[in-house]
Amino acid sequence: MTHKAINLNEKLSQFTEHWSPRTVTEFNGHDIMVAKIKGEYHWHSHPDTDDFFLVISGTITIRLRDGDVVLNPGELFVIPKGVEHQPICAEEAHIMLIEKSGTPNSGDAETAAPRQFI
Amino acid sequence: MTHKAINLNEKLSQFTEHWSPRTVTEFNGHDIMVAKIKGEYHWHSHPDTDDFFLVISGTITIRLRDGDVVLNPGELFVIPKGVEHQPICAEEAHIMLIEKSGTPNSGDAETAAPRQFI
Repeated sequence: MTHKAINLNEKLSQFTEHWSPRTVTEFNGHDIMVAKIKGEYHWHSHPDTDDFFLVISGTITIRLRDGDVVLNPGELFVIPKGVEHQPICAEEAHIMLIEKSGTPNSGDAETAAPRQFI
Repeated sequence: MTHKAINLNEKLSQFTEHWSPRTVTEFNGHDIMVAKIKGEYHWHSHPDTDDFFLVISGTITIRLRDGDVVLNPGELFVIPKGVEHQPICAEEAHIMLIEKSGTPNSGDAETAAPRQFI
């Protein structure tokens, strides 16, 4: 059997949409995802899962109600479950995300991007 | 409150030991870890957790009983729970690992590296 590494930049090259995470593999009931983001997302929270952000390229700010955190490439931050946050970035940034499988990215099933494997 | 990004290379600069993961934060009952590895680790498996490897620098090979997977920087692989694997690398490599908190890195509590936060 041939096992294949998952190359994050190769996965990111397959789509252009912002705020539409793609699932690259699964891990203990979680989705490992990549996303391209630009601009301001809305404030939201995830009541059932921590939210893992790792920046691959670009710079993002995660606004929290009690302060901001700025992430550059090679930097990560975990937003605890239930904590409101707003990701923003002036220029396009590429990130790896981890959330429990089935989590609406928007915090709301009505407005969430569909789960898409890549 | 000041929130702080976790910089993987800065964390890696704080230690030199091989095969001794450091926990940089927690996520949904998992440890997010960084490790420096070099040489051949022993064959082992984790009955209770998938095993997430992301290469930050260097090149590693994960031997599996039915084939090898080679990972370069920016590449990841998830070894399913219970699957025997042997990480090896000729030159020092730096990796990010994710396992359920409390998982012995060696597959055996007797020989595991202690859990160390950094």
